Amino acid sequence: MARVLYELCGIDERLRFSPYCWRVRYALAHKGLEAECRPWHFTDKEALAFADHDKVPVFVDGDEVVTDSYAILRYLDRVYPEAPLLGDGLAESRARFFKHYAERALAPAMLRTIIMDLLNAIHPKDRDYFRETREKRFGRALEEFHSPAKGLTQLDAALEPLRGCLKDADFLDGESPAAADYLVFGNFMWARCVSTADLVSNADPVYAWLERMLDQHDGLGRHAVRVTDIEGAYR
Amino acid sequence: MARVLYELCGIDERLRFSPYCWRVRYALAHKGLEAECRPWHFTDKEALAFADHDKVPVFVDGDEVVTDSYAILRYLDRVYPEAPLLGDGLAESRARFFKHYAERALAPAMLRTIIMDLLNAIHPKDRDYFRETREKRFGRALEEFHSPAKGLTQLDAALEPLRGCLKDADFLDGESPAAADYLVFGNFMWARCVSTADLVSNADPVYAWLERMLDQHDGLGRHAVRVTDIEGAYR
Repeated sequence: MARVLYELCGIDERLRFSPYCWRVRYALAHKGLEAECRPWHFTDKEALAFADHDKVPVFVDGDEVVTDSYAILRYLDRVYPEAPLLGDGLAESRARFFKHYAERALAPAMLRTIIMDLLNAIHPKDRDYFRETREKRFGRALEEFHSPAKGLTQLDAALEPLRGCLKDADFLDGESPAAADYLVFGNFMWARCVSTADLVSNADPVYAWLERMLDQHDGLGRHAVRVTDIEGAYR
Repeated sequence: MARVLYELCGIDERLRFSPYCWRVRYALAHKGLEAECRPWHFTDKEALAFADHDKVPVFVDGDEVVTDSYAILRYLDRVYPEAPLLGDGLAESRARFFKHYAERALAPAMLRTIIMDLLNAIHPKDRDYFRETREKRFGRALEEFHSPAKGLTQLDAALEPLRGCLKDADFLDGESPAAADYLVFGNFMWARCVSTADLVSNADPVYAWLERMLDQHDGLGRHAVRVTDIEGAYR
């Protein structure tokens, strides 16, 4: 059965940096499922018309088409119940918090730090689209939004609960990672793929967790192409 | 079987404001368990010598003595497995995040806002102890640490993931509350009992959740004595 994951790519097709797509990549690896990861650009809207959607990830599993990273994790748990990702009952309800924590606490802080690197990593044909949609969202120019000092201070504060958890256990989900870890880690893959910014001190318990996450599933994250691996791409 | 919960009290014995004790109060109500809630002051160290501990909550259940709010929730789930609080497996691992989120993201922000109200609500015999231990922890005078503007800004940012969750469901734990809700709500009871500060806008989804939480278990939180209920106590 053909499985396809449509993934955002950047200046090079091998550069895959969407935090939402990284959640799904790790989720597929967690389930031991293979999929063709097909590159997609922000402006390739017609390529997703079949899914009646305009953003990635889009996951195709035979006849099934699922959009939205969280919905894809839920789909995977339903159809492939071995090795739960979100789990059910209280576990599933609590997993939602990690999604919102990643998107509302971590992402804005990281974005202020890496936005210019992100713009640089995006395919040239997508840059006008990216600038226009983001400037509308932020209400100012990308250059004004960019503020690594503010972003890193904000991130440092936002990481506090994560630090507490990682003193108790190796992963957010206990002895081995599951959806809570993947939902949050996706953001760090995003930053890692497009930027060389040091987001976390080496002495931080979050740093050690990032290292463990990079090594999971045969080094899935560690082997991902970064913008610095692409000749001439890093300004 | 005699159950006793040792609880911090303030300027009046009826004023119970410890966030950690509120977690346990709600947890007991969740399980449908009765307990005598015995007042304790910060400086009554000898009263807890039997538990080999110097802080509340301390929970006595017949021959069992359990200290630390999270450990008490775990104990309740083990001994009274009906109506799980923390649950097990992924659910329990994820519950830890809410504990750290409450203690490391919400509490410091609230504390900057309510610290002078808190000092005022504490029993006069405990105030020197409170000032000394907290000034040592903050590295400055309580009056300098006190900064409602900074505290409320910090709290507003810290509440973002909570807002996201509460758009999806009525409670953090889904359709009805459990440990994730109680771990976080304890902090709001703390502020409510000692202060009249408006921490959350009435239009915030967090506000509606607070109202629902106050009504839980026959209005357990709503009926709690506040400093403003004690004649002459609110400065």
